Amino acid sequence: MTQVVIGIDIGGTFTKYGFVDRNGKIYAEGSISTSAHEKVEDFLKDLSKSIQASLEKFPDLEVIATGVGAPNGNYYNGTIEFAPNLNWKGIVPLTDLMYKYFHVPAVLTNDANAAALGEMIYGGAKNMKNFIEITLGTGLGSGLVVNGEVVYGHDGFAGELGHLTVKRNGRQCGCGRRGCLETYASATGIKRTVFKLLADSLEESKLRSIPYDKLTAEMISKAATEGDKIALMAFEYTGSLLGYALAESVAHLSPEAIFLFGGLAKAGNFILNPTRQYMEDNLMQIYKNKVKVLLSELNDVNAAVLGSAALAWKEIEKGTLLP
Amino acid sequence: MTQVVIGIDIGGTFTKYGFVDRNGKIYAEGSISTSAHEKVEDFLKDLSKSIQASLEKFPDLEVIATGVGAPNGNYYNGTIEFAPNLNWKGIVPLTDLMYKYFHVPAVLTNDANAAALGEMIYGGAKNMKNFIEITLGTGLGSGLVVNGEVVYGHDGFAGELGHLTVKRNGRQCGCGRRGCLETYASATGIKRTVFKLLADSLEESKLRSIPYDKLTAEMISKAATEGDKIALMAFEYTGSLLGYALAESVAHLSPEAIFLFGGLAKAGNFILNPTRQYMEDNLMQIYKNKVKVLLSELNDVNAAVLGSAALAWKEIEKGTLLP
Repeated sequence: MTQVVIGIDIGGTFTKYGFVDRNGKIYAEGSISTSAHEKVEDFLKDLSKSIQASLEKFPDLEVIATGVGAPNGNYYNGTIEFAPNLNWKGIVPLTDLMYKYFHVPAVLTNDANAAALGEMIYGGAKNMKNFIEITLGTGLGSGLVVNGEVVYGHDGFAGELGHLTVKRNGRQCGCGRRGCLETYASATGIKRTVFKLLADSLEESKLRSIPYDKLTAEMISKAATEGDKIALMAFEYTGSLLGYALAESVAHLSPEAIFLFGGLAKAGNFILNPTRQYMEDNLMQIYKNKVKVLLSELNDVNAAVLGSAALAWKEIEKGTLLP
Repeated sequence: MTQVVIGIDIGGTFTKYGFVDRNGKIYAEGSISTSAHEKVEDFLKDLSKSIQASLEKFPDLEVIATGVGAPNGNYYNGTIEFAPNLNWKGIVPLTDLMYKYFHVPAVLTNDANAAALGEMIYGGAKNMKNFIEITLGTGLGSGLVVNGEVVYGHDGFAGELGHLTVKRNGRQCGCGRRGCLETYASATGIKRTVFKLLADSLEESKLRSIPYDKLTAEMISKAATEGDKIALMAFEYTGSLLGYALAESVAHLSPEAIFLFGGLAKAGNFILNPTRQYMEDNLMQIYKNKVKVLLSELNDVNAAVLGSAALAWKEIEKGTLLP
């Protein structure tokens, strides 16, 4: 028998899962709809059915635990708390429910912490003890690693760098505040920046023909590749605010590296270069030219599943994963 | 024999030391001039003489280690690196030299990290695993504690919250940059704020009769107690910028508490209240009404010595203190 964990990534629309061994080999993957399930119990019933069906094809696998990454997942309590993008309101006792359906110990954290663990166990941070993972998706998530451990803080909610205030009275944020980093540095943020630039400037741009609802970070990336000035300016501006904010994170944690992960990170140097430059410009002397800003080495397709699996493997190794 | 460590606090002007047991009992204290010694070897020779003379009165004490807090002290390397306020330039291999003079293992960190350790072992953070210590002296220092350990980061220089940028292109800072938190929130910072307010406003104030060179945080505190409007406005402004900055630190670390320590913290509620209020105003919903802002419970006279001693005791307990 080969021991595996089930890595589960609960997103607002889809939930992906995979059977992952200690070396990061994924034996099978699957997914079900998240949003189609009004009740978490119905969701878990269908998830468990789908997983059982996949597992039957692999009689040699022994599932020893489940690791779950979910928005607003709380590591300490095993709960999903007030997740704005999920149907299940209030506080959902997820790991307790997971145990009921899967009969193996379950551990939960938020998706960005899971990505950080994936980076540490299977990605570019394999030999690092102090680093920061930034996930640039619809919003901006972050996982902070100090002394080889994810920082959960007093209540399990540490590491919300997407809600650093980078502009006092700046853009409106989904969190109810204004000027949060993720309103600038995320797939949605760069789209907002493009629209601001299209308003402020008379520069020609192919992006002028695309409505707000249709514009994606990929389109902005493609336009930048083709030399579109508005797209290039948008990346510069996005990287500048991200870089400034990361300089503040360096003053807190002095990490070895900062990894950029997720949709917007696919833009590569368009986002990497200004982020590096503005971070360096804003660092104290003692930190200059020390902190690497890198693209994540997690394969994007499997990253979320790998991250959730890494969470479970990490707990198993610490001996803290109990039913 | 009672086992003690020597807690040593190296300041720009004076160096204080004391013999401290595991429970924080200080058997004797002493001090020598720091600034009078051009060479670190001469300094250590005199320090060792002074300590030997004190020790002779306590034949029952067995010194098992030394713990040193010093500006720009690097925990990993045991070096003082480029400390602007010390005569000893470049990189000073302090713990190696300490061992030569004291023949017991030595451990070093910066003064703010030592204060955090003192708070954790002897002060208000005794049962806390996640907290932040802010030292409000001439500058602003900070010690971050995560999972019961001081955060040193990749290079030993983590936790420089005094150099968070709170105003882009703001006040000139000794670090060569502008708008750093410590140019506003520190004994020097509030003095600068008083002078700004005296310039901007026509409000009467007894502080108008005091030149910049003579004005101290104590005087501003005293004026605030007497209802002086400029002094009260200065505390409000200082607390507002400190509070805003601490909200960013909470988004990183989600600590249980933040302790204010040092000269400016003696102003009590004058600094505590606005700091609390502006921090809360700037927090994400998930962090609100959770993070305590408290005055340090370290006795200020002995705090630096206790902190340095705590560093040594902490290493002894971890079993990492080697000659």
